[in-house]
Amino acid sequence: MIQKSFGYACKKIREGKGLSQEKFALLIEMDRTYYASVESGKRNISIQNIKKIADGFGISISELFETVEKG
Amino acid sequence: MIQKSFGYACKKIREGKGLSQEKFALLIEMDRTYYASVESGKRNISIQNIKKIADGFGISISELFETVEKG
Repeated sequence: MIQKSFGYACKKIREGKGLSQEKFALLIEMDRTYYASVESGKRNISIQNIKKIADGFGISISELFETVEKG
Repeated sequence: MIQKSFGYACKKIREGKGLSQEKFALLIEMDRTYYASVESGKRNISIQNIKKIADGFGISISELFETVEKG
């Protein structure tokens, strides 16, 4: 399911950068508990918030979804 | 702005397939007026609906965003 795959990819990229959920959420100015629920696949996240996350990782949205689709 | 770029890319791809907004919305089982407002950049669309649109175009979400990012 897309929410789960998206959350898993975010977790993988964030961990690859050695950032905690707290630090990353702070960096992108997103509520920490909201970001945690995105990683858990619980949120039908919007395009604005997807953009915020991609920007925080320093990648484009298409690159973020390449990671999502690789699984 | 991401909503505008996303809507413009959807319009471009849909027109490339020779489909009207009505026909495409019907195909993906999305409300016609909602889909029209997405193309106009008025909606902070969710990942579930982004997936629905990409599936309707027969492409992956990353491919859809490559078109978005090309502008």
